[in-house]
Amino acid sequence: MNTPNTLKRVLMGPGPSDVDPRVLEALSRPTIGHLDPAFLDVLNEIRELLQYTFQTRNEMTFAVSGTGSAGMETCVVNLIEPGDSMLVCVNGVFGKRMADVAERCGADTSTIEIDWGKAFAPEQIADALEKKPAKVVGIVHAETSTGVCQPLEEISRIVHDNGALLLVDAVTSLGGMNVDVDGWQIDACYSGTQKCLSCPPGLAPVTFSDAALGVIENRKVKVQSWYLDVSMIRRYWSSERLYHHTAPVNMNYALLEALKLVTEEGLEQRWARHVTNHKILKAGLSAIGIEYVPEPGYELPMLNAVFIPAGADDVTVRKQLLNEFNIEIGGGLGAFKGKAWRIGLMGTASTLSNVMLFLSALEKCLTDRRVKFEQGASIAAAIEQAGVK
Amino acid sequence: MNTPNTLKRVLMGPGPSDVDPRVLEALSRPTIGHLDPAFLDVLNEIRELLQYTFQTRNEMTFAVSGTGSAGMETCVVNLIEPGDSMLVCVNGVFGKRMADVAERCGADTSTIEIDWGKAFAPEQIADALEKKPAKVVGIVHAETSTGVCQPLEEISRIVHDNGALLLVDAVTSLGGMNVDVDGWQIDACYSGTQKCLSCPPGLAPVTFSDAALGVIENRKVKVQSWYLDVSMIRRYWSSERLYHHTAPVNMNYALLEALKLVTEEGLEQRWARHVTNHKILKAGLSAIGIEYVPEPGYELPMLNAVFIPAGADDVTVRKQLLNEFNIEIGGGLGAFKGKAWRIGLMGTASTLSNVMLFLSALEKCLTDRRVKFEQGASIAAAIEQAGVK
Repeated sequence: MNTPNTLKRVLMGPGPSDVDPRVLEALSRPTIGHLDPAFLDVLNEIRELLQYTFQTRNEMTFAVSGTGSAGMETCVVNLIEPGDSMLVCVNGVFGKRMADVAERCGADTSTIEIDWGKAFAPEQIADALEKKPAKVVGIVHAETSTGVCQPLEEISRIVHDNGALLLVDAVTSLGGMNVDVDGWQIDACYSGTQKCLSCPPGLAPVTFSDAALGVIENRKVKVQSWYLDVSMIRRYWSSERLYHHTAPVNMNYALLEALKLVTEEGLEQRWARHVTNHKILKAGLSAIGIEYVPEPGYELPMLNAVFIPAGADDVTVRKQLLNEFNIEIGGGLGAFKGKAWRIGLMGTASTLSNVMLFLSALEKCLTDRRVKFEQGASIAAAIEQAGVK
Repeated sequence: MNTPNTLKRVLMGPGPSDVDPRVLEALSRPTIGHLDPAFLDVLNEIRELLQYTFQTRNEMTFAVSGTGSAGMETCVVNLIEPGDSMLVCVNGVFGKRMADVAERCGADTSTIEIDWGKAFAPEQIADALEKKPAKVVGIVHAETSTGVCQPLEEISRIVHDNGALLLVDAVTSLGGMNVDVDGWQIDACYSGTQKCLSCPPGLAPVTFSDAALGVIENRKVKVQSWYLDVSMIRRYWSSERLYHHTAPVNMNYALLEALKLVTEEGLEQRWARHVTNHKILKAGLSAIGIEYVPEPGYELPMLNAVFIPAGADDVTVRKQLLNEFNIEIGGGLGAFKGKAWRIGLMGTASTLSNVMLFLSALEKCLTDRRVKFEQGASIAAAIEQAGVK
């Protein structure tokens, strides 16, 4: 077997995604001190480019020193005090996780659950808040376990009309589709570096609105996590630069470089690229009869959750893709274990070449396994019909 | 000013320390999936080499996906349930931090405090436990804020005789001096990657004894932090390999390479190198009349906390060291702010060249600032008298 020294995969799973060589180079620059003026400049630049990527003017926009789940926990533990009511919308693994995190920090947690693969209708949130008001409403923008995109604008209006704060999981969406923090009035939003930002995993970009910061400033009880306490982290990321914990210096180098790549491409162009490659993949998969998990119209461009075709064994096919073609795709999570595949086209990995490589490799695997699929249909013809330029 | 692209410092502060080029190269290898069999091999190897470095057979030895303070929080929140009594020994910033972390997770927290710069005598812990028994006793092995080394063997006996678990902060000591987890019967121990392991900051090696794991297994209440919940992380680091959160893949590459460097040098040789360079530095500093903060005999070899000589301005001198010689040393923390410097000789940075460079650069800075010091004394002669080979 290859050792990781030389091992190069094509990362088409639910993350991490392929990392641009420029980002890997930045990662390997000599470490400097976390209080070195030159490093503080790096942090300032990260904040600025994160503000661009999150589309926000929020001053408190920074990278948590942990992966996406640490970002989730940061948002919840800072906004919630014991006994505060929180409504969590659950339609997949990550909504479920958010409810678990809320319970662990003593929230009076309510959930509304709908079938996995579906998105919430605004009325469902309105009904839930009418039955029981909440201080915070948590919802997942891009459910990585089901490939569902959750529209947020109308829900945000309802949440704010009910006097609640809106907390959004944008782990998979940020940098790959529109995440309009200010426009949609999101109060707290977290992401991860290893999805559409195409930086290695290890940091969690987050942003807090003034309303959210107000809630944090007026807490009666200390945040239960010292490590994730925004009121202290804020004093390090602000001009005060007060030591809190040692920032992951090299990971921040990498994040900065990854954000530069986002800025150079431009947000709109980047989103359009993700949509185009998703459409081509979808046309190709449809041509061989493979169906998507999400309701039509709610498919995420960067995370294609599809049902495993009858006769194909989940693990066998994924192993063959990995061992024969170095392609990683993801298996199903939770209710979808063994039933769905998750094919990522995230950030740097969202390319036409990856789509074509994957489609032909998958055909090979299914053929080898004697899985019946619509061989008569030409993938190429289907893609042409998809009308993608 | 140099940009971080090309900026190379000599890291002689309290961490991060200089990183070997082999570790930086490992850091920049192509990212692979956190469930890729090749990456799971990396995790297995990390566990094995951490067991060597911690001198333990503990199965639950792994790297937390955060910096040293996340390691501290991991140990506390997993061992403590609300209302559990915890005794924290405070003689510097990091003991204070541990008490804060314990309070935030609902421990019935007691502290014993002694003057900063001193180490605890075993009787002090015995007295405290006699007055009030504790489930967990937390203590710092190498207090990074004061440069004090805390002997642990006798304290461990007392803690266990009193039926408590021993929790040890080895952030600064691991890999630079003896940390004998099994020999000293430490139940939970955490460290950081950016001190004597000379890996960039971002991971926190931890280890739990069977007794500690037993306590975790028999918890009545969920761990308050989802991200740091050892019972779940354990299922990812074990043969089960159940997805919890996305591991910081590249940081783990780097840690593995850093641990290989530790293994190749050998623990004893590595500790001896730290002692030798510390002795030379101490002889040189003594020659110009600079005194250590810790009581004699309790000085840490990797972190030299010294009083700033009268007439020298803290920030001015440190700025000159940084801007003129690219040398980073640390200022004082807490009670020692403006009063002490912290000179690190950690891991890769513990070299004779760094000691000599620092001593002559410091002499230059003090001369420039017209600070009186014992110019008559020859550093070279003092070092020779120190009797270091």
